[in-house]
Amino acid sequence: MKYNIVLNTLGSILLFLGISMIFPLLYALYYHEKAISAFIISMIITVTVGILLKKLFSPLQPIRIKEGFAIACLGWIVAAAFGALPFMFAGTFTNFIDAYFESMSGFTTTGATVIAAIEGNPYSILFWRDFIQWLGGMGIIVLVVAILPPLGIGGMQLFKSEVPGPEPDRLKPKIKDTAKLLWRVYIVISALEVGCLYLSGMSLFDALTNMFGTMATGGFNPRNLSIAAYGNPFIEIIITFFMLIAGANFSLHYKVLHGDIKSLFKDKEFIFYCGIILFSIFAISTELRLYVYKSVFTALRYATFQVVSIITTTGFVTADFDTWPAFSKTILLVLMFIGGCAGSTGGAIKNIRIMLLLKQAAREFKKLIHPQAITPIRLGNKTISEEVMRNITSFFFLYIFIFVICSFIMSALGLDMVSASASVAATLGNVGPGLGIVGPTKTYALIPPLGKIVLTICMLLGRLEIYTVLVLIVPEFWKK
Amino acid sequence: MKYNIVLNTLGSILLFLGISMIFPLLYALYYHEKAISAFIISMIITVTVGILLKKLFSPLQPIRIKEGFAIACLGWIVAAAFGALPFMFAGTFTNFIDAYFESMSGFTTTGATVIAAIEGNPYSILFWRDFIQWLGGMGIIVLVVAILPPLGIGGMQLFKSEVPGPEPDRLKPKIKDTAKLLWRVYIVISALEVGCLYLSGMSLFDALTNMFGTMATGGFNPRNLSIAAYGNPFIEIIITFFMLIAGANFSLHYKVLHGDIKSLFKDKEFIFYCGIILFSIFAISTELRLYVYKSVFTALRYATFQVVSIITTTGFVTADFDTWPAFSKTILLVLMFIGGCAGSTGGAIKNIRIMLLLKQAAREFKKLIHPQAITPIRLGNKTISEEVMRNITSFFFLYIFIFVICSFIMSALGLDMVSASASVAATLGNVGPGLGIVGPTKTYALIPPLGKIVLTICMLLGRLEIYTVLVLIVPEFWKK
Repeated sequence: MKYNIVLNTLGSILLFLGISMIFPLLYALYYHEKAISAFIISMIITVTVGILLKKLFSPLQPIRIKEGFAIACLGWIVAAAFGALPFMFAGTFTNFIDAYFESMSGFTTTGATVIAAIEGNPYSILFWRDFIQWLGGMGIIVLVVAILPPLGIGGMQLFKSEVPGPEPDRLKPKIKDTAKLLWRVYIVISALEVGCLYLSGMSLFDALTNMFGTMATGGFNPRNLSIAAYGNPFIEIIITFFMLIAGANFSLHYKVLHGDIKSLFKDKEFIFYCGIILFSIFAISTELRLYVYKSVFTALRYATFQVVSIITTTGFVTADFDTWPAFSKTILLVLMFIGGCAGSTGGAIKNIRIMLLLKQAAREFKKLIHPQAITPIRLGNKTISEEVMRNITSFFFLYIFIFVICSFIMSALGLDMVSASASVAATLGNVGPGLGIVGPTKTYALIPPLGKIVLTICMLLGRLEIYTVLVLIVPEFWKK
Repeated sequence: MKYNIVLNTLGSILLFLGISMIFPLLYALYYHEKAISAFIISMIITVTVGILLKKLFSPLQPIRIKEGFAIACLGWIVAAAFGALPFMFAGTFTNFIDAYFESMSGFTTTGATVIAAIEGNPYSILFWRDFIQWLGGMGIIVLVVAILPPLGIGGMQLFKSEVPGPEPDRLKPKIKDTAKLLWRVYIVISALEVGCLYLSGMSLFDALTNMFGTMATGGFNPRNLSIAAYGNPFIEIIITFFMLIAGANFSLHYKVLHGDIKSLFKDKEFIFYCGIILFSIFAISTELRLYVYKSVFTALRYATFQVVSIITTTGFVTADFDTWPAFSKTILLVLMFIGGCAGSTGGAIKNIRIMLLLKQAAREFKKLIHPQAITPIRLGNKTISEEVMRNITSFFFLYIFIFVICSFIMSALGLDMVSASASVAATLGNVGPGLGIVGPTKTYALIPPLGKIVLTICMLLGRLEIYTVLVLIVPEFWKK
């Protein structure tokens, strides 16, 4: 492990984070909020630490895969810590566990909140809370481009051929190019959404903050009632559309923005993702029409928004789905495990992994009939290597394993079975709202402190796709 | 597919089943029960169909893997159908769905019942209901020896080297030898348990029927309150001991009975299985002591019995664990997924698969640090091939996949989330009692008919380890 380059890069991240505190500061200044000092102090601390790290540690070492892991994982941990400073200094929370939970929830684009009353907080604080999601979304796009593809994680086939392997000298320049390209896509779509929301009647503040929550598939927004607060079907349609986009592969959006619309219908994962969404909307709206709402339109409206919100792991809410019948709730709970597409800002297991797991299971049946046949797993024109398949099957097992262990802990802390498992599913999948005591109209405020720590770890594990976090606790990893 | 040998073998199974109806018939005769005629008619039908199949279809074809699958799956389906006849003729049930559910529950050693009041039924019927579990247990031992090892399913490494591959000419004799050997072990241990139970004060009838439920890890017994009816700690200790044995590998028992006691402590799966049991007992009894029972002894007594009963997938009950706190219930629910050891009569995913999945996940971490290292997965002295690993990872995914799909259906039929998922977990894992409306003090009687059909399929899928059942719906399988 080359500590210098890791600490130097963490310095850059903190510098960037500190500078980005200027935006909430502008809001604080404009509205003469007390939080002015909170942001100035946080900025000074964050920028100072950032500069110190950059000065003290030389950047002149090659970034290998190992350092990449350390930067990704420590990056999120450190960013969440410094990102929590404004909440502490502004008095949003009285203890650091809550502040760190909220900050990590933002940076991991989870959107699970411990703030009981969101409205009434200073604009600057609300802006920061929502803005860090968008920063987290940007971070995920680099991570997906830089660290996961060389390992075949996330099934990012497109990038696997574009991004070189772990050879130190070749890694850096290409990543920068690809990251810049995707950031441009991210920013363009973000701007489009702000425009649409503003035109639909939102204030600029609401348009911006809701965009942050949508594009990062985060789910924080400045209202107690989430999207239900606007009660506007047009806004719901706009947000549903942009959630769908944010949960799909950004390399696909890059192609579409460059005129290659056909690639959308050629992408197997995108088709699978849309198929699951359509099926879930159909199933849930049918049940809602039968048992909850009198109008087909209302049933369809709430089912559509909630399905897209949950599968993309955004977690925006227009209806209290915890009061829906068990079938609808079970579907939503399973969607929390499926999540978005590879290369999106969405979390959880991801559609491509589910597809490949289904393909591998189907292959096992073929093998029972033709034991000698060798049939590689294919996705479109591409053959998936057995190494990638092993990685995916292990990921699936680990995801379920961590879900089970953390559900144990949450139930030992006194949560009922549904709340315990839903709280873990919703944080591990970076969704946000769960069921039961962490349901869509409730918050994570009542979870005991130890539970908040466990769920904070779940958010990080889910966001960094488990391996990236757990590899850091292997002692061998740290050897020079 | 060679139909002749499949139908001929089904004939043998029915002949054997018909003849074994003589035992409940003896009870009916002794107690002058009305069920006499029910058993005589069922016997005549079963034996006649058996003889007809044997006469009409030639046994002179080689049994290949394909035919093995067909025999196993159709064997269970057909045996459950004919085994349900006495229930129908004796008027135990008024509809065939219930009778078939109960019969399949017995043959798959599940122990999920649709009989609301067990006591009051004729002795002969109760005997038959419990006896079919023991027959199902025998069937599983042949299945594990004959069909699963050549495919590497179930991780039966011991048998994999003993039982030859799918070459038709070599398959038959060796299977017969190994099956006979294990049956002898099964019968010896069964006799030991009957002796112990009889000496502890049970009637011969209760000793026999409880032994059937224990050795097959079934869970049916002739009392409404299950083992709680006896209220006798000695009986609980005896049954716990024999459940432990029934949930462990019978080839291990063979070695122990031949004096090789050391092999018990060398078997990695057995150690893992004991470890999970001890940990679960510790965790649950601690919570029970804190919140439910005042005495450590009582907490330990109920926790021990219930943990062993659930992990071995027996499903006997001494306490209403549905009223226990969420942590204890969550552990029991997870134990329903883990299940017994390979080569036991226990169901579910099995300890060896969980172990190997953990090992594969650990290997992925090593790979992150040493990407070039080639490290085969080992268990003791044996190397597990990548082919077997693929089979196991796919099995795990399929198990979870079927659990999710069937939970959807159960919740669509009106069950709450916990009951829906627990009913599927308890039938797919061949456990029996679940949580909520299918909890330990309740029955499956209130489940709607479609739900009973789904759960019957779950029992079969779980018992035959999914592949064996699903391969039969692949059209290619049936081609000549």
